[in-house]
Amino acid sequence: MNAPTSRRSGGRAARRASRAAPLSQDIRPVRAGLEGGTYKPLSERDMQRIHETALDAMEQIGFADAPQSGIDYMTAVGAEFGNDGRIRIPRALVEDSLAMACKDITLPGRDPQFDLRLSGNRVHFGTAGAAVHMVDVDGKEYRDSTLQDLHDAARITQQLDNIHFLQRPMVARDILDNKEMDLNTIYACCAGTTKHIGTSFTDPSFVPDALEMLHMIAGGEDKWRERPFVSNSNCFVVPPMKFATESCEVMEACIHGGMPVLLLSAGMAGATAPSTIAGAIVQAVAECLAGIVYVNAVKPGHPAIFGTWPFGLDLRTGAMTGGSGEQALLTAGCAQMHKFYGIPGGAAAGIADSKLPDMQAGWEQMCSNVMAGLSGLNMVYEAAGMHASLLGFCHESLILGDDIIGQALRCVRGIEVDDETLALDQIKEVCLGGTGHYLGTDATLSRMQKDHVYPTFGDRTSPKEWAELDKPDLIEKVVRRKEEILAERAAARFDPMLDQQLRSRFNIHLPA
Amino acid sequence: MNAPTSRRSGGRAARRASRAAPLSQDIRPVRAGLEGGTYKPLSERDMQRIHETALDAMEQIGFADAPQSGIDYMTAVGAEFGNDGRIRIPRALVEDSLAMACKDITLPGRDPQFDLRLSGNRVHFGTAGAAVHMVDVDGKEYRDSTLQDLHDAARITQQLDNIHFLQRPMVARDILDNKEMDLNTIYACCAGTTKHIGTSFTDPSFVPDALEMLHMIAGGEDKWRERPFVSNSNCFVVPPMKFATESCEVMEACIHGGMPVLLLSAGMAGATAPSTIAGAIVQAVAECLAGIVYVNAVKPGHPAIFGTWPFGLDLRTGAMTGGSGEQALLTAGCAQMHKFYGIPGGAAAGIADSKLPDMQAGWEQMCSNVMAGLSGLNMVYEAAGMHASLLGFCHESLILGDDIIGQALRCVRGIEVDDETLALDQIKEVCLGGTGHYLGTDATLSRMQKDHVYPTFGDRTSPKEWAELDKPDLIEKVVRRKEEILAERAAARFDPMLDQQLRSRFNIHLPA
Repeated sequence: MNAPTSRRSGGRAARRASRAAPLSQDIRPVRAGLEGGTYKPLSERDMQRIHETALDAMEQIGFADAPQSGIDYMTAVGAEFGNDGRIRIPRALVEDSLAMACKDITLPGRDPQFDLRLSGNRVHFGTAGAAVHMVDVDGKEYRDSTLQDLHDAARITQQLDNIHFLQRPMVARDILDNKEMDLNTIYACCAGTTKHIGTSFTDPSFVPDALEMLHMIAGGEDKWRERPFVSNSNCFVVPPMKFATESCEVMEACIHGGMPVLLLSAGMAGATAPSTIAGAIVQAVAECLAGIVYVNAVKPGHPAIFGTWPFGLDLRTGAMTGGSGEQALLTAGCAQMHKFYGIPGGAAAGIADSKLPDMQAGWEQMCSNVMAGLSGLNMVYEAAGMHASLLGFCHESLILGDDIIGQALRCVRGIEVDDETLALDQIKEVCLGGTGHYLGTDATLSRMQKDHVYPTFGDRTSPKEWAELDKPDLIEKVVRRKEEILAERAAARFDPMLDQQLRSRFNIHLPA
Repeated sequence: MNAPTSRRSGGRAARRASRAAPLSQDIRPVRAGLEGGTYKPLSERDMQRIHETALDAMEQIGFADAPQSGIDYMTAVGAEFGNDGRIRIPRALVEDSLAMACKDITLPGRDPQFDLRLSGNRVHFGTAGAAVHMVDVDGKEYRDSTLQDLHDAARITQQLDNIHFLQRPMVARDILDNKEMDLNTIYACCAGTTKHIGTSFTDPSFVPDALEMLHMIAGGEDKWRERPFVSNSNCFVVPPMKFATESCEVMEACIHGGMPVLLLSAGMAGATAPSTIAGAIVQAVAECLAGIVYVNAVKPGHPAIFGTWPFGLDLRTGAMTGGSGEQALLTAGCAQMHKFYGIPGGAAAGIADSKLPDMQAGWEQMCSNVMAGLSGLNMVYEAAGMHASLLGFCHESLILGDDIIGQALRCVRGIEVDDETLALDQIKEVCLGGTGHYLGTDATLSRMQKDHVYPTFGDRTSPKEWAELDKPDLIEKVVRRKEEILAERAAARFDPMLDQQLRSRFNIHLPA
């Protein structure tokens, strides 16, 4: 069980050299959009029961606090507005809305190579959240997160193959005016990455200016509408079973502006959702189905992601926890329900409760990320960088997330079974033909790159090599890589003329 | 998405107090033998193809290097011994052997509460391996592992709910005589834990003395045979497709002595097995099926675990790697094949390539452990404490493994869907009845212990609480716990009279 001692040094050197060259897209072992779905925590009957219970909840309990515009949209298509101020949604309306809902959503990147095609079991990982702290790994400190931190997260994301999109992971707390914060958030993200971006708006009245900025970046409204590279992460409900009045108005404005919407239901199991995993999923499904009804009442077929994001709670303290097995199950169960409806969906995974990138953070981030991937979740949000149960974001952890998610994606890719991989001929040749091992076979060498994910920071040296290398510290290596990335010129930086236009039209807080 | 600010301090104190009491077995959220199986990396067709290819390999390639006794046993039941010295096994013989093979294996603990009942998708986690180093976390050093280290690992295992068995994880390198090493290994393990133990023997001639020791510990041969609390981890093949002559003789001696056998095929994908996941599984399955034929030719129905343990290799260097996604897939795919045959099986998971219990170790150990559990692997070996691709064992990591595996087991337990967990009535009551949240509901409080796994060392404090606690370091906390456990009297220590008898009969290196 020890490492084999027979090594063919010539072959090793050749392999190392060939490995040093960057891999072209077609032979990369993992990529965005690999198909998951081999992990199914719910049976068909379980899913049917969750669906039926969600329909009961929509019909019998309904939703409070819809804005007047939403009441008008939804009652026009068949929802009932009750004397108790709740919108109740009959089953037939849910079915009609599902029938017209967008089933294949493309979330464009500003660079088309980063387009995300959401359907079936295709899996994509990215950031998200609203952390209020930045984790300073060197000083083991939590400090307020800033616009520069956000921009840096975008720049780092641009460099990481396995972080497929950037939803705003933290709040620019150095900008006190909400409108300026929302607009600068878009600027800081877009100036840092050409991958798809997700963001929120505090107030519906901020949306027109945001759209103006996006039109300028896109090179015109038509170009923006053709490839909307920013989507609206929208907490349209306040669980349990209440619409978030202003967020709904934001949503309507975004729909009219051609921006894809993430229908985000972020209940906390045990506080704002039932404590049971099944119950929390039922409520999240009911809420997101209401969102589908709402969106399709405003504009049939508008791209809307089914964002069932139930979070876990530590019932001993009432505090949120995102690093648990219960969280991983909540997320994977939701992914199966998205498939049940055939609607692209997203949920949260990869959250660490740990305050720092330590062993706990490693096991927490892997557990839910790999289970989300295996369940075929289309959009895995919060997948990298998140600590302290979403309160802190960490650039070093984001970079390590690329290794974690690379490994999770390898698991999602799964086991290929065909004549070549079953390898009977190769076994025969090796055993009966002579060499007795597979190290040098063509089959082994030809697949060494396209089958295997090699970690960038994960250390695989032997104890002896490790000691000779002076026992490299994982976090120190990552700090150096972060500094390297941030010392380079941002890859997504705007054209200087566009940048000048943006800066004269908007109060951009990021230094030019 | 932040932690809820409304907390009911009275309820919180009550919950904290009730939580401080130890949980009785029946309401523990997780336990040994939970049923996995919701994750299926292989389709039915994939399994059928792997099976057919393995049968082809057994029939067409066969196995070299069987001892004469093994040749005699196997040819007597229908295997063919060829001119090239290889034993070839026809399909019909495989089918006959599978029909008579033991399908429900109980691996007893010395204490019956730790009995492991292997069947179906029941999952158990434990240690294993043959590490030659002990990881000194304080000094970041790798040093030779000793008998005391092994005994300490046994004592720690005894205290950890989620480590269900102790297979010898490291080699007592301070004992130079192989026979004394093997006998002292049994002594050191049994004196440390009353859980089921797995061990190896260097030479068949050592087995009689080992059995004598076990008879003494059990209180007689009949008592030993009734409840064989030690099993033989047996590398009966040297992949590819060769019997390990001496290990086979050890196996025969163990079978005659009533000791359950782990049929361990430990190929390395890319070196001693095909580099493809499917091919490595094919070869491991063929080898373990040969083991099943062998065991059942010696003694029909003797308990033998299907130990397909293919390991991963870093093809850039030819060195073993166990922390990869490929490893997790190898193990999960094997678990499905065990189910295909209806034979209890085991494989390796939880291996870290990292040298220390850092973030890398966390993500590596969780990835394969949770996937092994979800795939319904009966025996998850190497699940805790293993570093440096199996070269180093770490007591601190073993203790943290209890948290990791507790979380993995919560995932294995899965999502219960019934009227109570679907919670429609509760949602109605909360939304329409008034309180608007679930924190205080009977349903929430009644399930807070039996539904939720709370980590022992995993930290869930807020950044503020964490700072007030002076930023506790995960590893420092675990070092203290290790010292606490090792300062206590060993829970499994032998009765003084028995100990004296063992010490006068055998040269026990462990201080009395």
